[in-house]
Order: sequence, then C-alpha cells, then structure tokens
Amino acid sequence: MIETLSNIKHKDSPNFFLIAGPCAIESEDMALRIAERVITITDKLEIPYIFKGSFKKANRSRIDSFTGIGDEKALKIIQKIGETFDVPTTTDIHEPFHAEMAAAYVDVLQIPAFLVRQTDLVVAAAQTGKHVTLKKGQFLSPEAMKFPVEKVTDSGNSNVAIIERGTMLGYGDLVVDYRGIPVMQNYAPVILDITHSLQQPNQASGVTGGKPELIETIAKAGIAVGADGLFIETHPDPKNAKSDGANMLQLDLLEGLLTKLVRVRQAIL
Amino acid sequence: MIETLSNIKHKDSPNFFLIAGPCAIESEDMALRIAERVITITDKLEIPYIFKGSFKKANRSRIDSFTGIGDEKALKIIQKIGETFDVPTTTDIHEPFHAEMAAAYVDVLQIPAFLVRQTDLVVAAAQTGKHVTLKKGQFLSPEAMKFPVEKVTDSGNSNVAIIERGTMLGYGDLVVDYRGIPVMQNYAPVILDITHSLQQPNQASGVTGGKPELIETIAKAGIAVGADGLFIETHPDPKNAKSDGANMLQLDLLEGLLTKLVRVRQAIL
Amino acid sequence: MIETLSNIKHKDSPNFFLIAGPCAIESEDMALRIAERVITITDKLEIPYIFKGSFKKANRSRIDSFTGIGDEKALKIIQKIGETFDVPTTTDIHEPFHAEMAAAYVDVLQIPAFLVRQTDLVVAAAQTGKHVTLKKGQFLSPEAMKFPVEKVTDSGNSNVAIIERGTMLGYGDLVVDYRGIPVMQNYAPVILDITHSLQQPNQASGVTGGKPELIETIAKAGIAVGADGLFIETHPDPKNAKSDGANMLQLDLLEGLLTKLVRVRQAIL
Amino acid sequence: MIETLSNIKHKDSPNFFLIAGPCAIESEDMALRIAERVITITDKLEIPYIFKGSFKKANRSRIDSFTGIGDEKALKIIQKIGETFDVPTTTDIHEPFHAEMAAAYVDVLQIPAFLVRQTDLVVAAAQTGKHVTLKKGQFLSPEAMKFPVEKVTDSGNSNVAIIERGTMLGYGDLVVDYRGIPVMQNYAPVILDITHSLQQPNQASGVTGGKPELIETIAKAGIAVGADGLFIETHPDPKNAKSDGANMLQLDLLEGLLTKLVRVRQAIL
Repeated sequence: MIETLSNIKHKDSPNFFLIAGPCAIESEDMALRIAERVITITDKLEIPYIFKGSFKKANRSRIDSFTGIGDEKALKIIQKIGETFDVPTTTDIHEPFHAEMAAAYVDVLQIPAFLVRQTDLVVAAAQTGKHVTLKKGQFLSPEAMKFPVEKVTDSGNSNVAIIERGTMLGYGDLVVDYRGIPVMQNYAPVILDITHSLQQPNQASGVTGGKPELIETIAKAGIAVGADGLFIETHPDPKNAKSDGANMLQLDLLEGLLTKLVRVRQAIL
Repeated sequence: MIETLSNIKHKDSPNFFLIAGPCAIESEDMALRIAERVITITDKLEIPYIFKGSFKKANRSRIDSFTGIGDEKALKIIQKIGETFDVPTTTDIHEPFHAEMAAAYVDVLQIPAFLVRQTDLVVAAAQTGKHVTLKKGQFLSPEAMKFPVEKVTDSGNSNVAIIERGTMLGYGDLVVDYRGIPVMQNYAPVILDITHSLQQPNQASGVTGGKPELIETIAKAGIAVGADGLFIETHPDPKNAKSDGANMLQLDLLEGLLTKLVRVRQAIL
Repeated sequence: MIETLSNIKHKDSPNFFLIAGPCAIESEDMALRIAERVITITDKLEIPYIFKGSFKKANRSRIDSFTGIGDEKALKIIQKIGETFDVPTTTDIHEPFHAEMAAAYVDVLQIPAFLVRQTDLVVAAAQTGKHVTLKKGQFLSPEAMKFPVEKVTDSGNSNVAIIERGTMLGYGDLVVDYRGIPVMQNYAPVILDITHSLQQPNQASGVTGGKPELIETIAKAGIAVGADGLFIETHPDPKNAKSDGANMLQLDLLEGLLTKLVRVRQAIL
Repeated sequence: MIETLSNIKHKDSPNFFLIAGPCAIESEDMALRIAERVITITDKLEIPYIFKGSFKKANRSRIDSFTGIGDEKALKIIQKIGETFDVPTTTDIHEPFHAEMAAAYVDVLQIPAFLVRQTDLVVAAAQTGKHVTLKKGQFLSPEAMKFPVEKVTDSGNSNVAIIERGTMLGYGDLVVDYRGIPVMQNYAPVILDITHSLQQPNQASGVTGGKPELIETIAKAGIAVGADGLFIETHPDPKNAKSDGANMLQLDLLEGLLTKLVRVRQAIL
C-alpha cells in the first residue's frame, strides 16, 4: 500500500509501516503533540508513518458518549498535521457522503469494521481515488474480506489494505486469529490494529472495556507472522481520553514498543 | 409495539404478530401476490400483520449481487401494498437520509443488524416519529441492545422493538440464543427473525448459505419462550428469488407453519 | 429409549420423559425426599421418570471442591431409591471400570460431556447392556454426536440417548443450539439438560456460575422443538447444595415448571 | 520445567524447548528414525528436546480409528528411544491407572485436553513424581488453567507445565488466543502445540481436518510472544500416518521451521 503514498517517509525501509494517532481528534494542540512525538520516534526507527485521527465517533454504544468536536473542525486539524509534518493522514468515514468530504483533507480513507459490508460506502471511498483501508468486521472470516477488497478494486482503485481488529469470541471478547493474516494477504496488505483487537465489547455499562497490558503480546505476534503494518491508537493520557481510553497505548510507551517490534521484524526478513 | 399502529388488524388477538414479505421488492406483481396470500392466512388465524419488503439491499457480500429495482420505485410498491390491503408496512434503511425518505411510504423503519450501532441512523429513524425496529447485531449481546433502544427513546420515540436474528458462532454459523428474548423484553418487545437466524454467513462463494429445513424448529422455540412477534421472509419460489433465497420460506408452507405456531402460543398464555 | 426400560411408569403417555434428582448424592435422607416429591409430581402429570444422582463428582474445577460421600455408599442410596419407589435410576461414570461397578446398582449409565470422546469409557458402558446416555460435549457439533452413538450401537447396545447441555460461546458462556435437537434425533432420542445448559463456566473463582432464572425459558424452547426428554437437577435448597447450586431448580418450583411444559408438549403433538 | 529434567541437553541455551515426535507410536523403526533426525537438528540448533509419542489414542471420533499397537509394546519403544539417545520422553495418559504404568517408561506425563478437568487423572499423574504437562481444554479459558495446575502442585509436585492447543471457535474450528500465553505463564511454563492448534474438529466425516500450511504462522506468533516451549508432531510421511495426518509437520521441513523460530526467539531476548 505505502509504495503509492507520495508523502510517506522511509518507504524503502524493510520495516512494517505504522498508522497511529489518537482515537478521536480532541483538540489541535493535542493532535499536534501526538503527531510530533510519533514522528520523532518513527524517524529514528525508520518506520513509514501515517497519522490517524477520527473526526467523528459514529457508532458509540451509548447516545451520551463523546462523538467529536465538529466534523470540519476535526478534519482541518488532521489536514494541518499532514501539512505541518509532511506526513500522510487517515480518518474513518461512516456514510457515503463522508467519502468526498474527508478526501479533501486526508490521504487514506478508513472503512469501519461494522460498515465494511456497506457497498455504497466502500464504493464511495474507492471512487475518491484515495487509498482505502477496510477494517475486517468482527463478524467476518478472513476469507470473506476478499469481497470488500474486490468492491474497491472493481471501482478502479487498487490502493487498498485490510485492517485486522479481532473476531467475536462469545459476547464479551475479541480474539485475533493470526491465521487470517496470511490468508488476507492474498487479497491486500494487512495491518494489525493492536488497539481495538484488545477490546472487550458488550460490557454491561455500555462502555467497551479492554486489556491494554496485552498490547505488546498481540503486536509481537502480528509482526512475527508478517503483518505489513500496525495500527495503534495512542494518547499522552489514555485514562482521560474522550474515547477508547481502555485500550489506547500511553504515548510514553510507544518508542519502547516499536523498538522491540522492529527487532522481531528483522528476525523474519 | 402493535398497540400504537393504527392500521393493524387483530390487535386484540392474543397471538404473536407477524412481519412478513419478500426479502427484496422484485416487482409490484410479485409483492401484491405475496401480500394477498399472507393476509388471507393471517386473517384466518387472527394474527396481526405488517408487510415487509426491502427497497434496497445495501450490504451484500459481493458487488455483483442484486441490490434492487430502484429506491423510489420499490418504496412506492410497498406503499401501494399498504393502501391496497390496509395493512401497515415496513422497510429497512441504511443511511440517515433514508429515514425521512422511507418514512413517507411506510409505517415502520427497520435498522439492519450491522448498522444498529450507528447513532445517526438510529436517531434519524426515531425522529421521523415512525415505529422503529432494531435488529440485534450478530456481534452484540442481548444486554447490549439496551443502548440502541435508548437511542430511540431518548429521541422522544417510544415505539421501538428489537428483532433477534442470531449471534455469531465461529465464522460460518449463527445461533439463536433464546435466553436473550426475555432479557431484551426488559427493554422493548422482541421479534424473532426466523429467516436470517438460519443464515450460514462467510461462505467461500460470497453467497450466504442457510438451513431452511430448520425454520419450524427455531420458530417453535421462539414462540414457546414468549417472543412478541415473528419476522419471516417468504417467496412463492425461494430458489429463484433475487436475494436470500437460501432461507426464505416457501409461501405455500406459511399457513401450515403459522397454524402450528398459534397452537404453541396458546399453550403458553 | 424409555420403551425398553422395564420399570418405568407412564410409558404410554405422550409426554416427554424426565431424568431428575440432585446433582450429587449428599445423603440417603435427602435423596429419598427429592425422589418422593418428584414421583408425586410425575405421577400426577403422567410423566415417565428416571431418578438421577451422581455418586462422584470427578471433574470439579478445584481440588478442594466436594466430590462425594463415598462411591459405594452413594451407589447403594441410588439403588435404594430405585427399589423403594420402583423407578429406574441413572448415574454418571468417569472411568471404564466404573461401568460394571455402577451397572450393579442403576439402570442407565450416563457419560459426561467432557468424556464423550473416550472410546474405552463409552464401550465399557455399552457392554454392560444397560441403557446409555451420552452428554454432548460442549466442544462438539450436533453432527459429531453420531460417532459416540455408533460406539454404543457397534458394541451391540441399541439403548442409547443423547443429552444436550449447551455449546461453548466464548470462554465464559454456554448456549443451547436448538437446531441440534432434530439433527441429533437422527441418531438417537434427545434429552435437554436444562441445568448444565445454563452454566457459566470458567469463572475466575473456579466455581461455575449460572443463570437459574432462565430455566423455564430454555426448557420451553426444548419441549417446543420436540425434545424426547428433560434432564433437571433439583434440590430443596439449591443455595446450600454441595455442588452445582448455581443452576439447580428449587424443588418447590418443579411442579409449576412441568405443568407448563406439559402444555407446550401437547401443543406440538 | 526443563531445569529439573536430568537428562535434557542444551539446558542453558536461551532457546525455547521442544517436545516432538510422531502422533502415535506406529513401530520401533519409525520412532527411532524420527527421534534420530530430530535430535540431529536440535543438537545443531541447541534446542532442549523431549521425545513425544502416544502409546494409545483413546479419544478418536470413530470406533474404527487406529488406536495403537499395544500399550506396553508402545511404551517400551518410547523407553528405548530415551535410552538409545539419552533424551527425556513423554506420553499422554487417559485413565488414573495409566499414570503409574507410563511413569515406569517415560519422564513426563501429559494430560489430554478433554481430560484436564478429571481430578483423579491429574492427581495420579502428579503423584508419580514425574513432570506433568496439562493440555488446556478447548473449552477452558486461560485463567481456568490455574486450577488444574494447582491440582498438581497441591499433590506435592512442582514440575508442571501447560500446553496451549487452541480454543473452540464455533463448531468446526479452533483458534489460538495468544493473550492466554502470558496469562498462563503466571501459573506455569507454557508450551504451544502447533499441531493440534490447527485442527478443524467436528468434520462430517468423523475425521478431524487441518490447515498444515499455517504451521509456520502460528509457531512464529507463539515464539514472538514468549512461549517457553513448542510441541510438534512430525512424521516422515504425514499423509500415510495412522493418526493426525492432517496436521503433522513433514519431518523434512522441521529444520527449516526451527531455524526460523530460533531467529524470532533471539529477537525477543
């Protein structure tokens, strides 16, 4: 996927690439701080990097959950990150009309897991000509991801990747099935989302839980089996983040984690 | 739910109510034929009845699957069914702007299972003032359906029901967890969808399979545990239907099935 | 199955049959009290009845769990129940040498779910000539129960039945897949265990939890789909029982439950 | 675990250790050939090695499956392997009386996954004083393995390890939950069984299927997350093996696989 992203750095590095940033864009200042820190680390480790931030949280469990600071306001912050640091950016979209709207600000459009079967949304994203990442539905087999990928390529867009983020294991848990990574690499590059893969959905409170102490475990396994990229949500203070606090990686831990993962990557080359 | 539907018949019957019709609206003639037959049966058995048809199939596995005959054309056919037979009607919507559009033609708006966490869609449906049915996501626990219901009621609309349609059991199968029916009845009336509950998703062909010979089994269990309503897709010739042929009930079998189910219903009153 | 049990009553009743009793035999007095009460109820409702009690709990999570009052002592109590009330009896066995040992005291040998794939155990039970009930493993598909049944019949014993007791749904939950009942009836009569089907295994405490308020729900569904028999553990005071207290039915509630179930049974005949 | 095995080589190597051999002991000649080859490889790579072979297959799906060449005959072959090559050996046991019987021939007793909740079996194994490996039940959570471990240690035996072999994912599939490896390492060393983790149980034929092309994938993930040991069944000609042919690694591929895994191991030290 990254070969065709014009503004990505370290394209020739043998490393996995990284999509990282906060869950939601909470403020410009916070977004800039996170991006700057991640870029310092990825430059040092020679990891190709794409900044990620959601402009809107559209599928929260509860109606009183935080959904964002305003769509355009958030998209402009993401755009500013891209311009300020000369890095590609990505955000997730939830309705077909979002595709063109978001494409004006970012380089990569992400289709959420719950929505990956919505043909109009996937096709609208593909038709912008931007790169498209498709999150594997928690209810889909790895083999079933062939069809959303084809919806993108049949729309004339070959810049598509798949993001693995776990599969339902009973009502309250998700498991990453690593067998799916080589299977899905038959269709497109595969990125492992080590944040949402650790979710514990369907909690009685209506707030999704998590197991952040296992981030390193599931990340190492993903790199060892050859994942092309990693997706990490990170925040200077996850406990006080406005969404997904349960699983975001504390920003101070990112360099240590990536350093270990680069070593695992080198062992499989 | 049905108490507040003005045009429904047999409202005082102790029976479960029925939502039935073809999967997709394929033609006016076919829709009228199905509706007429179902109404003859439900009048005989004194079952309150709501006609169902999809104006658009938005989440098919493959881009080359049938998606519909045109949105407005299909919605007008559904409206005609309602007027011709004086029965309430329902259809499923996939984007927030569909809510108002479809509300001009039908009495009940249905939120698909994959989309039941999309706040904007649920709220848009609720704000039309129409009745809203929420399909339980295959990835949601019964307890988690409390929150989509609250998104409707918090929007000032108390006419809401839940449709059970099975839960993921591994990649390729769905199971109905009947324990969930009384649990979800704490939040809203519960309708059992005996068509999609028998799906076998994630088949290698990209065409969802099924086990139609088990329709009677899962329906009887649902009525026995006290489901308020049943949801059935039926077609004169399921094998040649343009979508969901794998699980639709052959129309000729409907009367026999409902007759058995009315007996089970009476046994639990 | 029950046609060939010489000492069972109400053999010609159209009702389902019942296997019921305490989880473990705790004392002769308690066992007699439970049997007497259940027999009064099943005589009134004309339900064929088999007394059940475990002489030994062999697969408890924790080494400090109660395992029994002594094998022979418990078996003699079960035998006494059979003689006192002239009813058939059953117990579960855990090692091949138990088969002959228990066969001296009871009429029906039950193979536990975890052990249903152990060929020597199943064959040893079959070779006693006693009736054999096979619990479906929580890890087995309904279709896979064909093979344990064949291990019994290939040993020259055609008196075999299957007990459904739920299937793993993630780590901490079990679900009854009612589609499996007609599937397994292709191999042998099917009994629904409404006690263990409600277990919540793998709890952090090492003590299996449960959801006893759902007993009626899962029982009604089972009878509605045509289960041949029911398996219920019952106790005058479940909270103080020495094992499986989380799901046993309070003895005082048995008559009310069975009365409702007999009505559902009549509705499907 | 291996620190206390007197006859194991490369004890001070930083490598993972290996339990490997054929599924069942088919003949002395075949067993010697496999052992010799594996020892050559593990000596070269400095991997501590334990020879594994089953003397009896006790839980096959079908009564007509191969179960062994005779218990004592097979145990003597395993013993001969140990003496000939001066390596520790292991076999799996199925009934309490097997514990003492097998302990006369081997160094490590393995408890099968289906039987890991059988207290008498686990305690009998522990009381021999031999090392005990406990396969995680496909129906158990990682946390639930605390209790079988305690049954060993409460019997006065601290030489215990856990073997991960996958968790049920629907009826027909198993998934390795790598989060469980660090969780279970809180109780005992953890060995990843890369043969049985790839099983596809509950196939209609009664013969368990598999996905052997994924052996490398699931092995790399296991080593990357820090598994203490690996369990591999290997055979010169898996397609013609008498059991588990679907997933055994072809012996000729073992050196290449282990060489890659040693590199991953070094990357996490």
